Amino acid sequence: MTTAHHQDRMQAQITFILEIDKLKRVLRRNTLIDGSRRENDAEHSWHLGMLAMVMGEHAEPGVNLDRVVRMLLVHDIVEIDAGDTFIYDVVAVEAQEAAEQAAAERIFGLLPAEQAREFQELWEEFEARATPEARFAKALDRLAPIMANHHNEGGTWALYKVTASQVLEKVAIIVAGSATLGAFATELVEMSVARGHLAP
Amino acid sequence: MTTAHHQDRMQAQITFILEIDKLKRVLRRNTLIDGSRRENDAEHSWHLGMLAMVMGEHAEPGVNLDRVVRMLLVHDIVEIDAGDTFIYDVVAVEAQEAAEQAAAERIFGLLPAEQAREFQELWEEFEARATPEARFAKALDRLAPIMANHHNEGGTWALYKVTASQVLEKVAIIVAGSATLGAFATELVEMSVARGHLAP
Repeated sequence: MTTAHHQDRMQAQITFILEIDKLKRVLRRNTLIDGSRRENDAEHSWHLGMLAMVMGEHAEPGVNLDRVVRMLLVHDIVEIDAGDTFIYDVVAVEAQEAAEQAAAERIFGLLPAEQAREFQELWEEFEARATPEARFAKALDRLAPIMANHHNEGGTWALYKVTASQVLEKVAIIVAGSATLGAFATELVEMSVARGHLAP
Repeated sequence: MTTAHHQDRMQAQITFILEIDKLKRVLRRNTLIDGSRRENDAEHSWHLGMLAMVMGEHAEPGVNLDRVVRMLLVHDIVEIDAGDTFIYDVVAVEAQEAAEQAAAERIFGLLPAEQAREFQELWEEFEARATPEARFAKALDRLAPIMANHHNEGGTWALYKVTASQVLEKVAIIVAGSATLGAFATELVEMSVARGHLAP
């Protein structure tokens, strides 16, 4: 391969790296654990990568944790174009899918072709939840905001009028990825209800 | 093992996960690529994990990229206690070492013992730069703020009176981890000087 080819390839990689810096400006509904401000998608993705590294023993046996970490680092990049969708807003969640597909094509498409495919596949695997890696990654993604709200007197649950039965629907997704983390999330929800921080 | 043992173990993991949320509030000297605000350590660590995933072909052959990603997610956690050190402040860098060792013991020590060791080892490997994985991780850590300042009309270089020769000392660390990324960083520095965004 020519030097020019190598330079184009590296330039494409740099363009992608600069573009995804924007994930640091996509705000989520939940706050940091201390409630001081809203969390952004980039720091959220880092925290999930750490959760995967720490909580691996709670995944199905044989799960490739390195793939889970990679999936979690990539999983929200489409929100640079498509924005964060509040998971309790059913109409928005449906409309979001086409926007996220377009975003994946544009943003991952900045990379050299085979890397674009690799990242697109990681993201699609996460969304489809058909592999143990994706189910565990999704479980961690659902667990994190429950932990934040629980430790923050209900956090954004009250603000967005979310009820325990709605949260427990999301807990079912955690159970599908990890029985122990699902049981833990159920406990957090029950404690939050008992403390009056989450409507039954 | 007993159920009580499992519960204690998971509680230790959760305590660690909640504690490291504080990394989202540790601010670095450089800004986001768009210059809108200072970057925090958590989102910086995410961005470096992505750099490792994208730039792997620029590492020494045979580098374990998954280990690089893990190292980068963990590398700044000690700054929760020790604070961010500006790499051009030589006195601070020396005083920082003891503070970071204490921080590692306290924060990783929240985890179950064998996980505490695993994270401590990852962090020490990064700091020692004795493995190809650590050299590549450190190269990415040094490259990211140069990219941010370059794309931001010199960014914080002028504010902190940093010169090109000081930046080029850091570029030597990039060269040690990746010849191509080192050459790229050198180009960025030269362009920044040529544009008057960095003092020679």
